[in-house]
Amino acid sequence: MSSSYGKNIRMTIFGQSHSPAIGMTLEGIPAGKKIDMEKLSAFLDRRAPGKNAFSTPRKEADAPEFLCGIKDDVTVGTPITAIIRNTNTRSSDYDILKNIPRPGHADYTGYIKYGEDRDFTGGGHFSGRLTAPMCIAGGMILQLLGEQNIRIYSHIRSIGDINDTSEYTEEDLKKVKDKEFPVVSDARGEKMKELIANRKAEGDSVGGIVECVIYGLPAGLGDPMFDGMENKLAQIVFGIPAVKGLEFGNGFEAAKLPGSENNDAFCIKDGKVETVTNNCGGILGGITNGMPLIFRAAFKPTPSIAKEQKSIRLDTKEETTLIVPGRHDPCIVPRAVPVVEAAAAIAVYDAYLEG
Amino acid sequence: MSSSYGKNIRMTIFGQSHSPAIGMTLEGIPAGKKIDMEKLSAFLDRRAPGKNAFSTPRKEADAPEFLCGIKDDVTVGTPITAIIRNTNTRSSDYDILKNIPRPGHADYTGYIKYGEDRDFTGGGHFSGRLTAPMCIAGGMILQLLGEQNIRIYSHIRSIGDINDTSEYTEEDLKKVKDKEFPVVSDARGEKMKELIANRKAEGDSVGGIVECVIYGLPAGLGDPMFDGMENKLAQIVFGIPAVKGLEFGNGFEAAKLPGSENNDAFCIKDGKVETVTNNCGGILGGITNGMPLIFRAAFKPTPSIAKEQKSIRLDTKEETTLIVPGRHDPCIVPRAVPVVEAAAAIAVYDAYLEG
Amino acid sequence: MSSSYGKNIRMTIFGQSHSPAIGMTLEGIPAGKKIDMEKLSAFLDRRAPGKNAFSTPRKEADAPEFLCGIKDDVTVGTPITAIIRNTNTRSSDYDILKNIPRPGHADYTGYIKYGEDRDFTGGGHFSGRLTAPMCIAGGMILQLLGEQNIRIYSHIRSIGDINDTSEYTEEDLKKVKDKEFPVVSDARGEKMKELIANRKAEGDSVGGIVECVIYGLPAGLGDPMFDGMENKLAQIVFGIPAVKGLEFGNGFEAAKLPGSENNDAFCIKDGKVETVTNNCGGILGGITNGMPLIFRAAFKPTPSIAKEQKSIRLDTKEETTLIVPGRHDPCIVPRAVPVVEAAAAIAVYDAYLEG
Amino acid sequence: MSSSYGKNIRMTIFGQSHSPAIGMTLEGIPAGKKIDMEKLSAFLDRRAPGKNAFSTPRKEADAPEFLCGIKDDVTVGTPITAIIRNTNTRSSDYDILKNIPRPGHADYTGYIKYGEDRDFTGGGHFSGRLTAPMCIAGGMILQLLGEQNIRIYSHIRSIGDINDTSEYTEEDLKKVKDKEFPVVSDARGEKMKELIANRKAEGDSVGGIVECVIYGLPAGLGDPMFDGMENKLAQIVFGIPAVKGLEFGNGFEAAKLPGSENNDAFCIKDGKVETVTNNCGGILGGITNGMPLIFRAAFKPTPSIAKEQKSIRLDTKEETTLIVPGRHDPCIVPRAVPVVEAAAAIAVYDAYLEG
Repeated sequence: MSSSYGKNIRMTIFGQSHSPAIGMTLEGIPAGKKIDMEKLSAFLDRRAPGKNAFSTPRKEADAPEFLCGIKDDVTVGTPITAIIRNTNTRSSDYDILKNIPRPGHADYTGYIKYGEDRDFTGGGHFSGRLTAPMCIAGGMILQLLGEQNIRIYSHIRSIGDINDTSEYTEEDLKKVKDKEFPVVSDARGEKMKELIANRKAEGDSVGGIVECVIYGLPAGLGDPMFDGMENKLAQIVFGIPAVKGLEFGNGFEAAKLPGSENNDAFCIKDGKVETVTNNCGGILGGITNGMPLIFRAAFKPTPSIAKEQKSIRLDTKEETTLIVPGRHDPCIVPRAVPVVEAAAAIAVYDAYLEG
Repeated sequence: MSSSYGKNIRMTIFGQSHSPAIGMTLEGIPAGKKIDMEKLSAFLDRRAPGKNAFSTPRKEADAPEFLCGIKDDVTVGTPITAIIRNTNTRSSDYDILKNIPRPGHADYTGYIKYGEDRDFTGGGHFSGRLTAPMCIAGGMILQLLGEQNIRIYSHIRSIGDINDTSEYTEEDLKKVKDKEFPVVSDARGEKMKELIANRKAEGDSVGGIVECVIYGLPAGLGDPMFDGMENKLAQIVFGIPAVKGLEFGNGFEAAKLPGSENNDAFCIKDGKVETVTNNCGGILGGITNGMPLIFRAAFKPTPSIAKEQKSIRLDTKEETTLIVPGRHDPCIVPRAVPVVEAAAAIAVYDAYLEG
Repeated sequence: MSSSYGKNIRMTIFGQSHSPAIGMTLEGIPAGKKIDMEKLSAFLDRRAPGKNAFSTPRKEADAPEFLCGIKDDVTVGTPITAIIRNTNTRSSDYDILKNIPRPGHADYTGYIKYGEDRDFTGGGHFSGRLTAPMCIAGGMILQLLGEQNIRIYSHIRSIGDINDTSEYTEEDLKKVKDKEFPVVSDARGEKMKELIANRKAEGDSVGGIVECVIYGLPAGLGDPMFDGMENKLAQIVFGIPAVKGLEFGNGFEAAKLPGSENNDAFCIKDGKVETVTNNCGGILGGITNGMPLIFRAAFKPTPSIAKEQKSIRLDTKEETTLIVPGRHDPCIVPRAVPVVEAAAAIAVYDAYLEG
Repeated sequence: MSSSYGKNIRMTIFGQSHSPAIGMTLEGIPAGKKIDMEKLSAFLDRRAPGKNAFSTPRKEADAPEFLCGIKDDVTVGTPITAIIRNTNTRSSDYDILKNIPRPGHADYTGYIKYGEDRDFTGGGHFSGRLTAPMCIAGGMILQLLGEQNIRIYSHIRSIGDINDTSEYTEEDLKKVKDKEFPVVSDARGEKMKELIANRKAEGDSVGGIVECVIYGLPAGLGDPMFDGMENKLAQIVFGIPAVKGLEFGNGFEAAKLPGSENNDAFCIKDGKVETVTNNCGGILGGITNGMPLIFRAAFKPTPSIAKEQKSIRLDTKEETTLIVPGRHDPCIVPRAVPVVEAAAAIAVYDAYLEG
């Protein structure tokens, strides 16, 4: 363990890709909060697979069933549990993987950790499918944050070496939520789609970066030294499968700059303290400063590719080759966009409740 | 809160830059562990300021006083507390900062969080000085990990746009621990020092990247989804002041690659499962795979610079300018190298105890 | 929150008495553990209502459905979730309770905590029914502890002022598990049943004490100061509805004794350290000493009685009277016996994993 | 571990009876809270030994030194650490205990847990002396609660079989704080003192019960199922050395009563909801109901007695006898009274911050 996250709220995620169901329990949500179930459903749809040519053709009935904690769409104050049944699973696709771990996957480390009795089918508990329950929790919390005028947006920052525009307004980001392909610049988006299509045609895959921007955060969220906003966000964002890097504001770029360029000068705007630039991504000393919180998460390319790869047999400890069976996303980044929003919402709400 | 870290061990850090003392309590260390105090002292010296032209000339008597938990240099099994007295503090240097927050610093967010009664002198609890107690904990734990043949090395990966070599052996990294300027390539180091000296001469500062490599880790450390090695390391590394980015293995570079290049093929070496490449940085699905664990942390440039900067007055909410008083490191990256080792050791040991 | 318990394992309980389902998630159980589902079912039956004249005639289909974490009855290492559907609920029985809180119940405090939107039907999340998922977790863990030869027994220590015998062997306690009425002395049990029947006839209820004895515990479990075996057991046992007191070994009686009588002299038996008496209940300084662990939990009488009681209206803040509708146990103590075993198992296993 | 307590605040206690110092770190206290140091000192004096004939003649300079978190007696928002130096230690008194554990003490379980390298002198980390730092934390928090008009009182409920009066007003309890011997009825107190004196003369000791009453608590504190007020109080109260039982309201007595007698009828007083009786001790379903919170903790007799006792040798595993050296309280209950207040304050404040 632990598949639980949070201190002032706690989200516990359970399930394996091919178990009867997956789901989540969310503790700490106040009573009397109306959840717009249609809006939640629309949010979950953004993560759902099979929507277009750029994601896996598998179909998942990802409609959550709420088992408790909500009555007539209103929270009752005690733990909320929702589950999603796993119906469209083809476990036999995975038989070969019992003995031959996929390069880049958790198959091998899952074997080391849990041994012969692990559930490797569909990636088990390591499957990207486990981000669906995270989106149930995050989708509800996005609504609660919305009531406080806290708005969270994500978009594809890059696929491979193709970048989205870095110039945008909140209005631009808002539109991304309704797009089939979540980028600010649709022209760049077309190029990204082309790249994904090419990689797919080659039986290959490609990674990318998701950028998240949060407006409306009060100054003062987060605590030194290990409960800062960066720490809290990092703990959940690195829980999203395939994330290998995370940076705030200028991030790695800041390491190249002189202080005189990277420091954000303070100024007064409409009587309020702001900063002229926002190189710190809205966080100083782990605590929000009232400017937009900005972070970027790097996703590695989907490890499941159609090309033949070198691997080994777990039983005989011999080298072998593997062609990964089944259908897989050539690029998970588009579907990861709402997942990053969900993760951000959960971390922010946890800090928000601490005050 | 929280200035506490860990689940199987717990480190609690306390103190402000100018309070009577700073220190840490470390719970969960088994009884009967001999701590080599000279070795610990040598480790702490690597972080100490005032060693050379590249760090602040302030002198700190950073010798820890152990209050409990250790008897005759052997752990007794119950909480270990060590403190460092703050003696060389010139609080008056900071008077001007009561009302004028330094750009890029936690002065402003500390004010928002704690109000008038915060301790802003020397950065209070946000001071980089608080990494000294982290090094006491980490230095002890490095010794415990060493008994298990787990070896942790850090070096400066870059200062500004000057990179250390990316080709090195464990032997090279070992030598770094004894160097005054912790890089693999001393030639590159000379260039870095030159850059720091130039920035200093300009009254400016510069950031950089620290790379950490861990050898000898058993496969199987870390847990899905939020207690993975990446999550655990992230939570502590983002607790080091000035860290704004973190990546594992290929990290952000992986986002640009096709899966066929980023995946690490499995192979058998001397009867053991290894990977041909190590683009994942030794972690798959949050769990160590037995290859070296590699991560990089991006440090922003020191915000305290001698140049005049724009700021505001907290009392009158008027814009003003500020020349930061006192003596400051033009670049904290060299001193951050052992801190990153300490943080890594603490996170790894926490995972190690979980098994 | 929190409806979660544990540090080395974590059990999260969810559901309301009349929500679609109740259930639990259990994290931290190692992979490869075979669960005997028949044995688990038999354990759950011991808690089930409607078995005899001494408990509520309601029938519950308490068969758990495992959603994940177990495959072919073997644990896979990742979170285990099991749910129980709520089918036999008559919410209309509870309409009157929306405005008139039952004396002795959580109706009023639930209203204060969660307001108008709480789920008061059937007691909501406060219902004794929530001990069913605790028994799923505990029942599984009892099997794991059994493999380590740790045996946990409970019996009714008293109902009202009628005590079970205090002289018994482990063999006697073993037999209790198969009894319809879980006492050591069946003669005393008959008197207890008579008392319950009398209270029931009067439209009243009665409380009692459950005693738990644990054999086979290794010495050394538990940690000072707040993770001792007493602390851990207390945190979970006071989570069982209706528990108002808890004592270990001699407990409250020890407060009357001189040290010379209460101290347990050490002795050597078969080359092993034991104590001549066991007044400390197997725990010294919060840590097990290898002797049987003994505790007693006091259960208040069921607050739901048929007699007319004084209460108030929450809407008008007027005094009124209430006759609690629905069917209720005149005494929950017999059904609480396996719940106490389950709670003890969970706490012990959490300490056991810490080592 | 863990010697840490709390979720919304966290108190970490460190030190051994004879280590250079003992102390505590308290996280989560808001900034800007003025601490009355004289009042705190007076509170600590109530726990101090050597005040009268009824406690050990050892003298301790228990004045805390604040290392951080407080400036000019005002909290700054970040962790507060205070230490107490151990000066008057006579470790040689304990030499014999290295090999011969005292019956009723943690000597043996400490040996099992920590082995040869444990610090057994003075009881090490298990010493009652560790309640001094708990009183520093509790004493500060009592002041913070006082600002919210929450008042916490404790008194000796019984010593051996001599009870204090159970009839008292808040005014009576208030006076107890200033008494040398903390009982409501001084007449009963005289009898208790006589009993203690007799036991002491016999080289023996005696236990007792401390009762705690908390006025002014808002309704709604505590959470189901394992963070209820009973669970929270239990976790800390069982952390006080020598506590073997805990009950709320009617406690164990409730187990004997019919529901019609034990239920607390609701009524309206001055427009507010109250209960006619308070058998539940102010807690229903783990949540405060606005009535006074009442609990009792049973303390076993001091195990260190002058009489010869049977014990064993840890090295040779032979039976032997022991006369415990050193000076010891014949009854720790009077000194435990403020410790119980401190523990209660800490638990209540943790719940209070959760809201």
